[in-house]
Amino acid sequence: METQPPPVEEMSAVTLTSDGPPSPSGPRRTLIRSIVARPDGGLGLVGSKVTVGGMVKTGREQGKGSFAFLELNDGSYLDSLQVIVDSSVADLGRLVPTGTSVLVEGELKKTPDGTKQPVELRVQRVLDVGSVDPSKYPIPKTKLTLEFLRDFVHLRARTNTFNGSCQSPSSVLLSQISAVTRIRDELAFATHTFFRENGFRYVHTPIITTSDCEGAGEMFQVTAMFSDAEKLEKELKENPPPSEDEIEAAKLLVKEKGEAVSHLKSIKASKADIGASVSLLTSAKENLARLEERFKLKAGIAQKDGKIDYSRDFFGRQAFLTVSGQLQVETYACALGNVYTFGPTFRAEHSHTSRHLAEFWMIEPEIAFADLQEDMYYAESYVRFLCQWLLDHCFRDMEFMVKNYDKTAIDRLRLVASTPFKRISYTEAIKLLESVTDKKFENKVQWGIDLASEHERYLTEVVFKKPVIVYNYPKGIKAFYMRLNDDDKTVAAMDVLVPKVGELIGGSQREERYDILVRRIQEAELPLEPYEWYLDLRRYGTLKHSGFGLGFERMILFATGLDNIRDVIPFPRYPGRADL
Amino acid sequence: METQPPPVEEMSAVTLTSDGPPSPSGPRRTLIRSIVARPDGGLGLVGSKVTVGGMVKTGREQGKGSFAFLELNDGSYLDSLQVIVDSSVADLGRLVPTGTSVLVEGELKKTPDGTKQPVELRVQRVLDVGSVDPSKYPIPKTKLTLEFLRDFVHLRARTNTFNGSCQSPSSVLLSQISAVTRIRDELAFATHTFFRENGFRYVHTPIITTSDCEGAGEMFQVTAMFSDAEKLEKELKENPPPSEDEIEAAKLLVKEKGEAVSHLKSIKASKADIGASVSLLTSAKENLARLEERFKLKAGIAQKDGKIDYSRDFFGRQAFLTVSGQLQVETYACALGNVYTFGPTFRAEHSHTSRHLAEFWMIEPEIAFADLQEDMYYAESYVRFLCQWLLDHCFRDMEFMVKNYDKTAIDRLRLVASTPFKRISYTEAIKLLESVTDKKFENKVQWGIDLASEHERYLTEVVFKKPVIVYNYPKGIKAFYMRLNDDDKTVAAMDVLVPKVGELIGGSQREERYDILVRRIQEAELPLEPYEWYLDLRRYGTLKHSGFGLGFERMILFATGLDNIRDVIPFPRYPGRADL
Repeated sequence: METQPPPVEEMSAVTLTSDGPPSPSGPRRTLIRSIVARPDGGLGLVGSKVTVGGMVKTGREQGKGSFAFLELNDGSYLDSLQVIVDSSVADLGRLVPTGTSVLVEGELKKTPDGTKQPVELRVQRVLDVGSVDPSKYPIPKTKLTLEFLRDFVHLRARTNTFNGSCQSPSSVLLSQISAVTRIRDELAFATHTFFRENGFRYVHTPIITTSDCEGAGEMFQVTAMFSDAEKLEKELKENPPPSEDEIEAAKLLVKEKGEAVSHLKSIKASKADIGASVSLLTSAKENLARLEERFKLKAGIAQKDGKIDYSRDFFGRQAFLTVSGQLQVETYACALGNVYTFGPTFRAEHSHTSRHLAEFWMIEPEIAFADLQEDMYYAESYVRFLCQWLLDHCFRDMEFMVKNYDKTAIDRLRLVASTPFKRISYTEAIKLLESVTDKKFENKVQWGIDLASEHERYLTEVVFKKPVIVYNYPKGIKAFYMRLNDDDKTVAAMDVLVPKVGELIGGSQREERYDILVRRIQEAELPLEPYEWYLDLRRYGTLKHSGFGLGFERMILFATGLDNIRDVIPFPRYPGRADL
Repeated sequence: METQPPPVEEMSAVTLTSDGPPSPSGPRRTLIRSIVARPDGGLGLVGSKVTVGGMVKTGREQGKGSFAFLELNDGSYLDSLQVIVDSSVADLGRLVPTGTSVLVEGELKKTPDGTKQPVELRVQRVLDVGSVDPSKYPIPKTKLTLEFLRDFVHLRARTNTFNGSCQSPSSVLLSQISAVTRIRDELAFATHTFFRENGFRYVHTPIITTSDCEGAGEMFQVTAMFSDAEKLEKELKENPPPSEDEIEAAKLLVKEKGEAVSHLKSIKASKADIGASVSLLTSAKENLARLEERFKLKAGIAQKDGKIDYSRDFFGRQAFLTVSGQLQVETYACALGNVYTFGPTFRAEHSHTSRHLAEFWMIEPEIAFADLQEDMYYAESYVRFLCQWLLDHCFRDMEFMVKNYDKTAIDRLRLVASTPFKRISYTEAIKLLESVTDKKFENKVQWGIDLASEHERYLTEVVFKKPVIVYNYPKGIKAFYMRLNDDDKTVAAMDVLVPKVGELIGGSQREERYDILVRRIQEAELPLEPYEWYLDLRRYGTLKHSGFGLGFERMILFATGLDNIRDVIPFPRYPGRADL
């Protein structure tokens, strides 16, 4: 397995200045990737003067302290650059501890024959040093687990500096974080590239929503009521509300002033006198109104008729974090043609499994005038594009995954990138699973069930040994917005199943027929009112359209072979945990 | 002003099939952009068979109903395609109403000389029609305002179908929405492209956070406590908690069973008898514990000592929607080098201005080993890149903006794309503003003030007539994390000011020195504890770094010349409003 050269656009990302000081305001730093990831390993740059910055992975003094070797990693690539510093240039003791950050300037030289890398950097000036006291560093070098690292979410990214040459199991774990970050970045850019090349527009669907896409999700609520209550409580403490006696006194005053006006009128007093008296009455009334208003103020969450009064919340009603942008992005598909959304989504499920997060990212394309066949075409093209992209742009990090974690990761990418997916109807899939004799499933197979993970993985891993798209599911197990087929039993839904993770994508053709959509909402025992806007899209110039959703973290699990979804997102959120 | 051809990658987005049926599963539809946006206006495609789908902007029957002209727009481009349907092909009456969606197959023909567009589509088959009853369509054709459209957020995107040839003021307003959507999409892709080309990695910072970046923001709280309370209330209704009498009875039972055991022991009963009795006692105790547990359950939000008990919330503590990803992305800058985040951010401010949203998108790069000069370099390069990108990729939509809304929009993009920004220190800027005699500012100018919008716009629009970067602000008006300068009075902060909107970018070099950072947090009267993780980044291998933030919607206002931020985001959120 050979390391592939990075694509041209990465090579040109950094221009190496051959001599002279860098521009005073432009970037000073050369990415280590642009040296060591070259096809020639950097040999063509020998003699160039460069500035590099990064963290010391390993450092050691040599020649009785006359010089030091530093393995410098700047996060731009899995591999580090060997850096040599003479003791005449800097205090070597400050540079060698693992985790030290340094910015150095020097000249690239050919290494002696037989060394691992063809070039190394001879330092001429040390521009910056950020020291670290190894005895105080909170992350130990040994006996690390990914679980342990999750307690140091703010430091786990930088632990990549421990990787590579040092072969302890913990250094391998630590390298995963930075490799995964690069893989994640590449998959995000590949996503935007794929949809752009296919004529899709990116639409930001809302994060705060007053719609519930599935009508079933456990949603987080977004509120300002707690802080409003706190503010009110503080205000009432500083400025207590009036007592009942004060209210009574104010009422009495209004009564008296009212009587005074009546009296003056009855004796036909002068206009000026009556006017003055009315004005006193008015201000007494205003005072009473103000006191009564403040009297009603109560510490705590705003309530009305014994229930929480959400009309007093920021948006004037209950608002939630989105569980899917699909329904909203449909409004744009009906106008702009092919669109997609790529954003965070949320589930308030008390789920502690390795496959669930409370906050995760989703890609949801929506394709105007597309039927289910076209939907499957785009789903397949997208997944294959992502796999090929990683092979083309992230091969070194994938090699790391293969070496340390999942031997089949690269083979799996190659298989998916190069093989047309198998398409099979749900009904055929059930028949096929019913005829299985070499395996006993935990969940009984019969028409009407939702396929369990064991069934999905059996289909893709054992039967077809490649990705499988199952389509036309029973309507009873799928969402109301999926298009009813002519058999009246199934809907035009499809799931993409892949080896290792099972379901990667779920999608469907949307029900574009007004009457049937209304019936499906009612059958799902959902209220119609919240979906009136969605029905409007069918009332006025409806059109066929289809779409699907891909869980971004699940795609990263599939690509890397990692097992726990908490390790493929920079800041994992799950029950009891939202660090930073 | 000439329309520029779209770049090559857009031209190749759709392959036109010259004849024969399209692939059964691949995309059937040709984007109208790939016909009418060609440099030859589509002439080179004459004779091609294509399928196009979109909405009818205007339609009219001609030749005594023997054929119909349709202006078809599919959202891929500002301009529409002229489509001609013969009455032998379809019921023309169903096709002509504005807002009808149609999918048609036909052949591209040269139009008679003198017509606006060089090609038109002669329809051979009508594949799909989505009808609209014009008398029921909720958006009127006339007297529309952008304010009015905000009440129809689910339909406003598709209102682009009313644009172009029809010249009423409302049709102009309506076209803005789709043009803005394309401009927004282009700016998003340009953002990813710029940072990728400059060696930055995209990092998803968390949306749900337990940190408060500025220590000052009004934050939305994220909670499951309301729904938990609702569930509990429902459960208690179905299954009421025990009464005090039931508790007393259960206690009595425990006492009796206990006495029974004592008695059996005292009479030295058989092991079996004592065992049976003990087992009865155990189950009585378990029953009591269960009842006491349920007795404590109270409807309503979980409380402890008279306060809301956030430890019972989903994350075990108070959690909020992020106001900025900066502090979190810094953890990755310290490890992976140059990184950026591009995601939604939130402010629970009761602000009803045309410049504020409760939910908006921000781009925040963070650059390892960069000082303020380099920070300014990247900020300037990024903004100029975005402007050039729009000129290169979105010219037709920009022409629309110029024609209908802001005459200077394209000139402004050209100016910014081609002109180096002026850099001036805050102190110099104040001197300059103090010497102004031709204008009286509402806000007094003196060293130490935060520049008001009137000052910022005067600098960029009147004095320098180009973008200006003001740097080194007084420490008293800037955030604690900005690097203290040697004068001990200013911090290494910078703002990019541009004509039309004033401040577009705010950034700074970050304080990397542990001791000074601690002092600055204390001076800001913030608690240290929540920032311990941030201080860790300075304790262990600290490094110089800088970054900035750009409000995405503000950039779109700048580019388009539109005035209200609610019109440049698909689903605007502000006090009292979170539609869909």
